[in-house]
Amino acid sequence: MKISRITVYQVTLPLEHPYRLSGGRLYFDKLDSTIVAIDTDEGIRGWGEGCPWGSTYLPAFPLGVRAGIEELAPQLIGLDPRRIDFIYRTMDLALPGHPYIKSALDMACWDILGKATGLPLCELFGGRIDEPVIPQNSVPTGTPEEMIKSIQWGQERGYVVHTCKIGADVALDIERIETVSSYLPGNESATFDVNRAWLMDEALRVMNAVKDYVCYFEEPCETYEESLQVRRLTSHPIILDEK
Amino acid sequence: MKISRITVYQVTLPLEHPYRLSGGRLYFDKLDSTIVAIDTDEGIRGWGEGCPWGSTYLPAFPLGVRAGIEELAPQLIGLDPRRIDFIYRTMDLALPGHPYIKSALDMACWDILGKATGLPLCELFGGRIDEPVIPQNSVPTGTPEEMIKSIQWGQERGYVVHTCKIGADVALDIERIETVSSYLPGNESATFDVNRAWLMDEALRVMNAVKDYVCYFEEPCETYEESLQVRRLTSHPIILDEK
Amino acid sequence: MKISRITVYQVTLPLEHPYRLSGGRLYFDKLDSTIVAIDTDEGIRGWGEGCPWGSTYLPAFPLGVRAGIEELAPQLIGLDPRRIDFIYRTMDLALPGHPYIKSALDMACWDILGKATGLPLCELFGGRIDEPVIPQNSVPTGTPEEMIKSIQWGQERGYVVHTCKIGADVALDIERIETVSSYLPGNESATFDVNRAWLMDEALRVMNAVKDYVCYFEEPCETYEESLQVRRLTSHPIILDEK
Amino acid sequence: MKISRITVYQVTLPLEHPYRLSGGRLYFDKLDSTIVAIDTDEGIRGWGEGCPWGSTYLPAFPLGVRAGIEELAPQLIGLDPRRIDFIYRTMDLALPGHPYIKSALDMACWDILGKATGLPLCELFGGRIDEPVIPQNSVPTGTPEEMIKSIQWGQERGYVVHTCKIGADVALDIERIETVSSYLPGNESATFDVNRAWLMDEALRVMNAVKDYVCYFEEPCETYEESLQVRRLTSHPIILDEK
Amino acid sequence: MKISRITVYQVTLPLEHPYRLSGGRLYFDKLDSTIVAIDTDEGIRGWGEGCPWGSTYLPAFPLGVRAGIEELAPQLIGLDPRRIDFIYRTMDLALPGHPYIKSALDMACWDILGKATGLPLCELFGGRIDEPVIPQNSVPTGTPEEMIKSIQWGQERGYVVHTCKIGADVALDIERIETVSSYLPGNESATFDVNRAWLMDEALRVMNAVKDYVCYFEEPCETYEESLQVRRLTSHPIILDEK
Amino acid sequence: MKISRITVYQVTLPLEHPYRLSGGRLYFDKLDSTIVAIDTDEGIRGWGEGCPWGSTYLPAFPLGVRAGIEELAPQLIGLDPRRIDFIYRTMDLALPGHPYIKSALDMACWDILGKATGLPLCELFGGRIDEPVIPQNSVPTGTPEEMIKSIQWGQERGYVVHTCKIGADVALDIERIETVSSYLPGNESATFDVNRAWLMDEALRVMNAVKDYVCYFEEPCETYEESLQVRRLTSHPIILDEK
Amino acid sequence: MKISRITVYQVTLPLEHPYRLSGGRLYFDKLDSTIVAIDTDEGIRGWGEGCPWGSTYLPAFPLGVRAGIEELAPQLIGLDPRRIDFIYRTMDLALPGHPYIKSALDMACWDILGKATGLPLCELFGGRIDEPVIPQNSVPTGTPEEMIKSIQWGQERGYVVHTCKIGADVALDIERIETVSSYLPGNESATFDVNRAWLMDEALRVMNAVKDYVCYFEEPCETYEESLQVRRLTSHPIILDEK
Amino acid sequence: MKISRITVYQVTLPLEHPYRLSGGRLYFDKLDSTIVAIDTDEGIRGWGEGCPWGSTYLPAFPLGVRAGIEELAPQLIGLDPRRIDFIYRTMDLALPGHPYIKSALDMACWDILGKATGLPLCELFGGRIDEPVIPQNSVPTGTPEEMIKSIQWGQERGYVVHTCKIGADVALDIERIETVSSYLPGNESATFDVNRAWLMDEALRVMNAVKDYVCYFEEPCETYEESLQVRRLTSHPIILDEK
Repeated sequence: MKISRITVYQVTLPLEHPYRLSGGRLYFDKLDSTIVAIDTDEGIRGWGEGCPWGSTYLPAFPLGVRAGIEELAPQLIGLDPRRIDFIYRTMDLALPGHPYIKSALDMACWDILGKATGLPLCELFGGRIDEPVIPQNSVPTGTPEEMIKSIQWGQERGYVVHTCKIGADVALDIERIETVSSYLPGNESATFDVNRAWLMDEALRVMNAVKDYVCYFEEPCETYEESLQVRRLTSHPIILDEK
Repeated sequence: MKISRITVYQVTLPLEHPYRLSGGRLYFDKLDSTIVAIDTDEGIRGWGEGCPWGSTYLPAFPLGVRAGIEELAPQLIGLDPRRIDFIYRTMDLALPGHPYIKSALDMACWDILGKATGLPLCELFGGRIDEPVIPQNSVPTGTPEEMIKSIQWGQERGYVVHTCKIGADVALDIERIETVSSYLPGNESATFDVNRAWLMDEALRVMNAVKDYVCYFEEPCETYEESLQVRRLTSHPIILDEK
Repeated sequence: MKISRITVYQVTLPLEHPYRLSGGRLYFDKLDSTIVAIDTDEGIRGWGEGCPWGSTYLPAFPLGVRAGIEELAPQLIGLDPRRIDFIYRTMDLALPGHPYIKSALDMACWDILGKATGLPLCELFGGRIDEPVIPQNSVPTGTPEEMIKSIQWGQERGYVVHTCKIGADVALDIERIETVSSYLPGNESATFDVNRAWLMDEALRVMNAVKDYVCYFEEPCETYEESLQVRRLTSHPIILDEK
Repeated sequence: MKISRITVYQVTLPLEHPYRLSGGRLYFDKLDSTIVAIDTDEGIRGWGEGCPWGSTYLPAFPLGVRAGIEELAPQLIGLDPRRIDFIYRTMDLALPGHPYIKSALDMACWDILGKATGLPLCELFGGRIDEPVIPQNSVPTGTPEEMIKSIQWGQERGYVVHTCKIGADVALDIERIETVSSYLPGNESATFDVNRAWLMDEALRVMNAVKDYVCYFEEPCETYEESLQVRRLTSHPIILDEK
Repeated sequence: MKISRITVYQVTLPLEHPYRLSGGRLYFDKLDSTIVAIDTDEGIRGWGEGCPWGSTYLPAFPLGVRAGIEELAPQLIGLDPRRIDFIYRTMDLALPGHPYIKSALDMACWDILGKATGLPLCELFGGRIDEPVIPQNSVPTGTPEEMIKSIQWGQERGYVVHTCKIGADVALDIERIETVSSYLPGNESATFDVNRAWLMDEALRVMNAVKDYVCYFEEPCETYEESLQVRRLTSHPIILDEK
Repeated sequence: MKISRITVYQVTLPLEHPYRLSGGRLYFDKLDSTIVAIDTDEGIRGWGEGCPWGSTYLPAFPLGVRAGIEELAPQLIGLDPRRIDFIYRTMDLALPGHPYIKSALDMACWDILGKATGLPLCELFGGRIDEPVIPQNSVPTGTPEEMIKSIQWGQERGYVVHTCKIGADVALDIERIETVSSYLPGNESATFDVNRAWLMDEALRVMNAVKDYVCYFEEPCETYEESLQVRRLTSHPIILDEK
Repeated sequence: MKISRITVYQVTLPLEHPYRLSGGRLYFDKLDSTIVAIDTDEGIRGWGEGCPWGSTYLPAFPLGVRAGIEELAPQLIGLDPRRIDFIYRTMDLALPGHPYIKSALDMACWDILGKATGLPLCELFGGRIDEPVIPQNSVPTGTPEEMIKSIQWGQERGYVVHTCKIGADVALDIERIETVSSYLPGNESATFDVNRAWLMDEALRVMNAVKDYVCYFEEPCETYEESLQVRRLTSHPIILDEK
Repeated sequence: MKISRITVYQVTLPLEHPYRLSGGRLYFDKLDSTIVAIDTDEGIRGWGEGCPWGSTYLPAFPLGVRAGIEELAPQLIGLDPRRIDFIYRTMDLALPGHPYIKSALDMACWDILGKATGLPLCELFGGRIDEPVIPQNSVPTGTPEEMIKSIQWGQERGYVVHTCKIGADVALDIERIETVSSYLPGNESATFDVNRAWLMDEALRVMNAVKDYVCYFEEPCETYEESLQVRRLTSHPIILDEK
């Protein structure tokens, strides 16, 4: 099987509610997504998507996705899309770095492999697990009252874990955490996602101020080293997921 | 798809030539292998094999393979063999540790997945790579002359990398390495596999004595820490692959 | 003195009360034990036992004990059972790893040595110490009330240290610890044995929640490294005893 | 002063001689450069350039430069280009990462600052130093004879330091180094730039083989950690300059 | 442009209010400042100042400033003052160490560069940033009441951050911190600057005693290592700025 | 000046009050002291003393003092006692280790040097310092009431720092600390000297239990490493002075 | 069984040949040994010996052995000598440190245990091993010729490993090592025991000078840390056995 | 005894031969020394000297010495000069840092103490040692021939250790070392003092080039960290003595 054609579509995704991060500094009301279709000589078509969270959040931007696919696509024509490691290695040789560009093409190749084998991808990834997945309610930065309202919206839809975006102002963040943590019933929990917005001393001040509440903090500081320092001086669990 | 039956076969594999390791302390002229067949309700049968290198080489032994499969098999009946992570997790809960037992069953499940999807396993593991695989000639411990003869046997069959088992006696090992390294033409290379047989001082003495030859050493000492110390005081590349 | 014969017996040991660990995931109502008798040419017989805690708790299982003894026994016939280091070295060469198999044979050899010298083993291990041994009451996972009842059963029999198995659910574990710790009089103490069932964040949440109680925690997390991290962020003493 | 307009030009730069790196794997006969002109309301125009070494060498590519400037330029219109830290901070907020894109715009702003102050940039960077700069002759990968010829070409033009690109094949690299090092007179020196092409064992083999020659090695291995390991087991100076 | 003349002036600066540091051990009622004028052959004159905080606070003293300029000035005559790195390198070769002496001359050269280019120095340092600067009120050591009075003086002038000098006596320092922290409204904050006056145990005792107040501590102990130890056992943010 | 004679005296020192350490395990009612007189050919006589705290407290015992002086004295006859480094080096060559033996002889030589120069030793050690020395009241282990009585005895004699010996029983030690700390007025302080009697978990339990009192702990655990671990998990200052 | 009496004998052991260590600084022609007899109420008598290598070599001296036994013996009367851990613990409580004193008493208790059980001690220490023990020839410091003669003396008696004492003078030590190493046939080996006599630079100079000989070095420098540094800069195996 | 007067003298010391360091960059033909006389009320006068090696070699300069004494002297009038620690503490409080200034005053106080006690200072510093002191011949940078001549000058005067100043040019330094090391007889030795003049790569190149000569290197690189790196990759002993 060979890749015979790669097609790129641009799609604008309006957000149902505008979204604020990092205490309001980042604002989104739509996303610019790139959809890739990979066609093969055997008629199978695979779909992938590259949709950065705007241009301002992580080192990735929509125009870069499309510029990168324009660079990479010619290298892939004629290759077997099911040989996924080889495809990825070819992309790495043609363009070092820029993983956010390659993921859209990678995704489309996996889609082809799934269609070619007639199996859902979860089977190819090790097989289904029976444990339920717990989806999380993403709560944008706002006043404590707005955030409670957003949590209630989620509770009505069955959410029990609420990821609350904070990270603006020390005094206000403490108030948000206290309000949310006091509001939640015992079988629900809150993660406070700072998206790296705190300086180390701000993290210490907030986290020590709320040390009697059960809550998790996600990416409190800009760097891994800063968050490590904060963790050594506080006692809440900390979650890291951004490079 | 469900596992309906697991069948175990014992097979004795005679070795064409008896094999010596660790300077002759370990001797093998046949291997006791366990073959597992997993049958499914959809008629697909997968094959796996558990064949420890005797009982004396690593923490694994043929009777243990069969005792372990007897323990594990009842837990697997009725499960979908294509859900490989789930199968493995089930085995881990039923019997912690003992990976050499589980690999035979794991192998059989992958065989079923390949047959069920109609794909060779290499496609499911990321796809074929075009680079040729370089097989290695395994040269048992012997006198330098016997080892040269064993290398010549391999050269006639096209081998260019020769893994020579050594690790008995410092003076003799130095002689083996010098003889083999001097004999090999520039486009062939030797790895000297000690299988953890040297004490640290023996490793230092041999490796410093042959420091002008280009060669690799595999598992010189019993533990990782010992090999690390040796590497800091010598200059040959060292290969580690045994836990 | 020489080993002339090794005999293996299987014994099923019913538990007086079924036992639950790790928040109920592990359940035991009987144990499958292997009894070994080593006979010598001088008429002394030594007894040993290999009794894993089922197959699911640690890397050890009853069938493996018997398969291993079948592998090892022929190597030991004719050796002097009193030369215990030599016996152990012989077993290590015949079968690397698997210490849970070898302990039954080792135990029987020590029994022979004691009988041969006419001394209780404690004299051969450095001599009796006069300090009393404090046995511990092992309290299975249950509701707080069930666990108090189990503690009372122990108190009636004179136990003053109670090892309480927990590790299921954060909220419930906190309740168990508070209930037990509040119940115990000042001259008794509780160890809460998690048997590695907590994730790091769960350990932090529970241990910080009960930081005003005097109690010990045993094996809070899966790995040594995880428990080390937990220890750095909490203030209770932690006990580690599982590899 | 305010930025009033940003103009982008694409220029193809043919290389006088095609250039090979990494033992020939990377081949260049022209470069795709992006020229940026920043105009201001006071009539000063600043020039910058973004010219990645093709798309294959580092995480940077010509199409990405232009896509990124398209993303960034609108944010810069109206700002004072002489406030360079502020310009850079604005770019970082508008698009995290991608420094190879921003450097072209940064360069143009510095050009404006120099023109606005009437000073050459070296004065703004701390002032001229009187020590002469020693330019280096860049010698592409080739046979030892080709590389000597390339060095002679440089010697005729006055070069005394020669950066020789190697990194293909262990035996051939040793030959290249020996040939070049033997050829050079005492007052000239060679740096062998591997551009991260060696595995650790290849680096050890080559560098130990030529340990009697005076030479420097640049970026022997893929990662900093690998080069650090190599440095500990060899004695040549090592130069690192790639992230 | 060349330096044609360097003139040194001594100026005594009386302090409006005498100032006490380190719990009163250091007392200042005037400062002895050295003013340097660098004249150039193009008529531009640059001004710099070297004003140590007496002779007792850091390794710097007014007589040393003037002795050092006497040593350095002859080396600078005839050099271009705009070539600032070169000027600094020249000073380092003529007199290793003693940075407090060189800063006055360095400052004067920057002044000349700014005048020569017609730009304020902030433009040459990367450009103006729009964020407001928050000046801090420096509160000398005194009784808690005196310190509150000093804070009120600052509040009337708009200060919201108050750097309070403490570091005399454990019991008194705790009282000062509690009094000041309780007094300040939520939108103001206090830094307690110890100027390295505490032993480690004093730092632990004070900082743990006030752990429920939001405050920062500056240079609690003599050395970096001591402050690091203190930071590991306390939870307030710590500021370090003295070598 | 030469050593002409060394004379040894044994003296039994009865204690006014018997003394208990380590929770009572160590009991002393008299000390066995060795007095050394060194005579010189110039008529000056120097006095030294070796008085271990019994035989049970540190690696030193009275009989050993006298046996060691018997060993060392012949080596010293004829040497100049004022050449103190040389004397000490001679003793080290004649008998490695055993510093508790050598100190008596060393002390006598210093006495001779002081007499020979007509200066008090404090002048030879760098000169008098004007700061007063704060003597400490040593409070033996007892019931809380007994310890308060012992403190009162000291207070009547002007002591303001009280070193209280504890280290027997967790519950009782907590009571002792609370009683003493509550009793002391603000201008006095207590050090609790455990003399290495606690296990690590006992140290954690006691020190966390009294974390709201201001107090110091001396030598909580057997080894430096154990005390270091305890310090990381507690917040009281810790004093170490025993090897 | 109880200890009823402890008797101490002094024995002077003349050496057949005087012995020199550390390049001649240490000289021995006899040793002062202490023999201990422990009698029990059951008539068994155990023998032990404390024989330091003079007083000058390690922290141990004959008079100290006897002074220590005088201190310890009264504590042991009435105890069961077969309870060896308890005996040792009793000695540690009665007199911390001084292991060279306790070993004589410990040895006598083991002798009693062996006699009481009727077994040779090797059976109580884990049993006989069949591998032969290789005794080493101890060669005192001397001229190279004297040392060869001493080796020949050993060769006539069947020794194949020769421990040569060196450590006096760099040039002479190099000559000794070269002479000895060149003299020895391939199946014999030399350890050069420096007894901590070299400074670090001396060790580097000697060991680098003889880097082409196969030899071992024992205790090259005074401290463990110094020997560790030396090992990092040399390539001979190093043996450490002195505290 | 009290300090009644402090007098400062300036003395110019011409060098018999001009002296070059760091490959000639530093040149000295005279030194500017400061002589201090401290007079006391008891008529004893003590002398000290502050004589930096010009102003260019270390952070110390003659004008600074005199400026500092001017600052410090008034603080010392009236103090007892024999209380040396107290004098030094007073100087540290009056002027932090600048040890090169204080040493002249310190020296004069020691002189007074010696005169007051009637003892040479060596007796007050621990007493005379009988080992001879080996003075070193200091050989300035020059051509290899000039340096040999300088060594011969020293040999005629009995010097056997020659400290040769190098550090200019890699090729020339290698030649200097080879010439000097080849010239010296076996009972003399050379230290090559680089005075921190080499970059790390220069140190590696020179030291590896002369690795077969026995020689020491003093302060090869600017910082301790650089010299540490060099030491790890070379095998000569390295001497560090400059901060």
